[in-house]
Amino acid sequence: MPSRGNAHLPSVDEAAFITALRGIALSPEARGLRDDVAVLGDLVLTHDTIVEGVHYLPSDPPESVAWKLVAVNLSDLAAKGAVPVAALMSYTLTGDDAWDAGFVAGLGEATRHFGIPLVGGDTVGLPKGNARVTGMTAIGRSGGTVPSRSGARSGDALFVTGVIGDAGLGLKVAQSLAANDDVLLRAYQWPHPQLEAGAILAPFVTAMMDVSDGLLIDATRLGEASGVGVVIDLDAIPLSAAFRGRAGDSQAARMTATTAGDDYQLLFTSALPLPSLPCPVTRIGHIASGAGLKLLDHSGIVAVPDVRGWEHL
Amino acid sequence: MPSRGNAHLPSVDEAAFITALRGIALSPEARGLRDDVAVLGDLVLTHDTIVEGVHYLPSDPPESVAWKLVAVNLSDLAAKGAVPVAALMSYTLTGDDAWDAGFVAGLGEATRHFGIPLVGGDTVGLPKGNARVTGMTAIGRSGGTVPSRSGARSGDALFVTGVIGDAGLGLKVAQSLAANDDVLLRAYQWPHPQLEAGAILAPFVTAMMDVSDGLLIDATRLGEASGVGVVIDLDAIPLSAAFRGRAGDSQAARMTATTAGDDYQLLFTSALPLPSLPCPVTRIGHIASGAGLKLLDHSGIVAVPDVRGWEHL
Repeated sequence: MPSRGNAHLPSVDEAAFITALRGIALSPEARGLRDDVAVLGDLVLTHDTIVEGVHYLPSDPPESVAWKLVAVNLSDLAAKGAVPVAALMSYTLTGDDAWDAGFVAGLGEATRHFGIPLVGGDTVGLPKGNARVTGMTAIGRSGGTVPSRSGARSGDALFVTGVIGDAGLGLKVAQSLAANDDVLLRAYQWPHPQLEAGAILAPFVTAMMDVSDGLLIDATRLGEASGVGVVIDLDAIPLSAAFRGRAGDSQAARMTATTAGDDYQLLFTSALPLPSLPCPVTRIGHIASGAGLKLLDHSGIVAVPDVRGWEHL
Repeated sequence: MPSRGNAHLPSVDEAAFITALRGIALSPEARGLRDDVAVLGDLVLTHDTIVEGVHYLPSDPPESVAWKLVAVNLSDLAAKGAVPVAALMSYTLTGDDAWDAGFVAGLGEATRHFGIPLVGGDTVGLPKGNARVTGMTAIGRSGGTVPSRSGARSGDALFVTGVIGDAGLGLKVAQSLAANDDVLLRAYQWPHPQLEAGAILAPFVTAMMDVSDGLLIDATRLGEASGVGVVIDLDAIPLSAAFRGRAGDSQAARMTATTAGDDYQLLFTSALPLPSLPCPVTRIGHIASGAGLKLLDHSGIVAVPDVRGWEHL
């Protein structure tokens, strides 16, 4: 249940709230509310909610908002190696029929693309002037192994799929803070969860999670959950040609990429040779004894930034 | 997925939206989005979302809002004869720590009372000034029979559990539009889903649903889903002593009770002798051939009101 929160919100005591929730979520299926998913038999369940103006821009196309709602939920299933089974949706109607129609079109496209049938949910009216709040519960079936965040061990290698940082620059494009670039904008508005890779990887990993709030904050969480230290080589972070073309390849650019969030790649640890995957995978560091995050690059030790991703104040 | 909407909202084309959703919810598990729940194997899944100022009053105690969130979801499981298994929650943090703490306390009370473990969900920050939007996905296990809304047949008797109308008067109490009455206020703020009765009744009914938006509108929906007519004897509607003491026993009072909503009783049809139940049950009418709702009382035929419950404009 970690939040994909936004640093620009009024400070809220989310940590205290989730600690209180943990006090009533004591069943083993809850995994201590520390793992993005619940596990019921061979079913894996997750729920992500996205808020207008927080998780997406009011100006984003409604088709892309629907796609993102599906994608962020399926990204949590991907990180558990689960195959999509069904989804329930919660939707707020605000009286904007054109927006709603665009949303449904995008939802149809996403559910067909990822093969996850919509089977239920709720539609509620929202008084005008309120931010849309849209949620999805995604249900998947595990292939037998459901990796957690907490299994990383000293000596494991640390990997990430795909490239990191495109979505962060894409957000700036969508905000008109950067010149248009279709690759970057698509990475932000139309993320692709790594479902196939997750299902293949699940038996090979010691820990796995998706990168949603920023590589550095998510790697920190993986390390904390596993009780280990995490060492990341910034030089190894996979950057796209589009990213390099826009932001360059400096340490500052790599710091931007690793703290931006919205990547929806898989971050995982393993001590085994990896199987063949349908996407690029890059070794970006390793797990060490102790605790905390350490960053390196060709120049040596790099200071960990104060803000490691989308993190509540 | 019928909405527990509010007639005071801006008119939104919810019917068109849900029709569009049905176009992408084609799997049999979705039950055409007509049945409040989805059925996956022996699991029954439902999602209800409640909105501040729509489904509850901003002045309602946060403990009661949490209780109601759990209760309205479990009421959908009750109508399918399902036993609660687990719940995921979506919660919006607004920076009001005292409210959040009250909500968690009520959530703990409700989940313990009804024996439904909280296993996951999402917590998101909501920019100040926006209405809270809180959702729950409840998962239940069916006892083998999962009644739908669509099985009522001509000649079946129509029944309702408990009493009708208390919650509607309780809302007026909570709005300070009526003098205080603890029984009525509790019925509105702390509803009790009929889980035990639902599980016992499931094998005996031809159709079953919960009464959430108003007895008359919900009975109309049951009739439409089943392709039958529904005849209700207003004189037979079970009213509590508290309701009679406040609103009397006239035809107008009975019309108030049957259009108020928030009852969370079970409405069902059966042609069989009923088993023993842990709650009162009343025969309030029957199923007829044809279509539409007919109302009777001791004076003869009664006109069906324009507004049958909480229904979008």
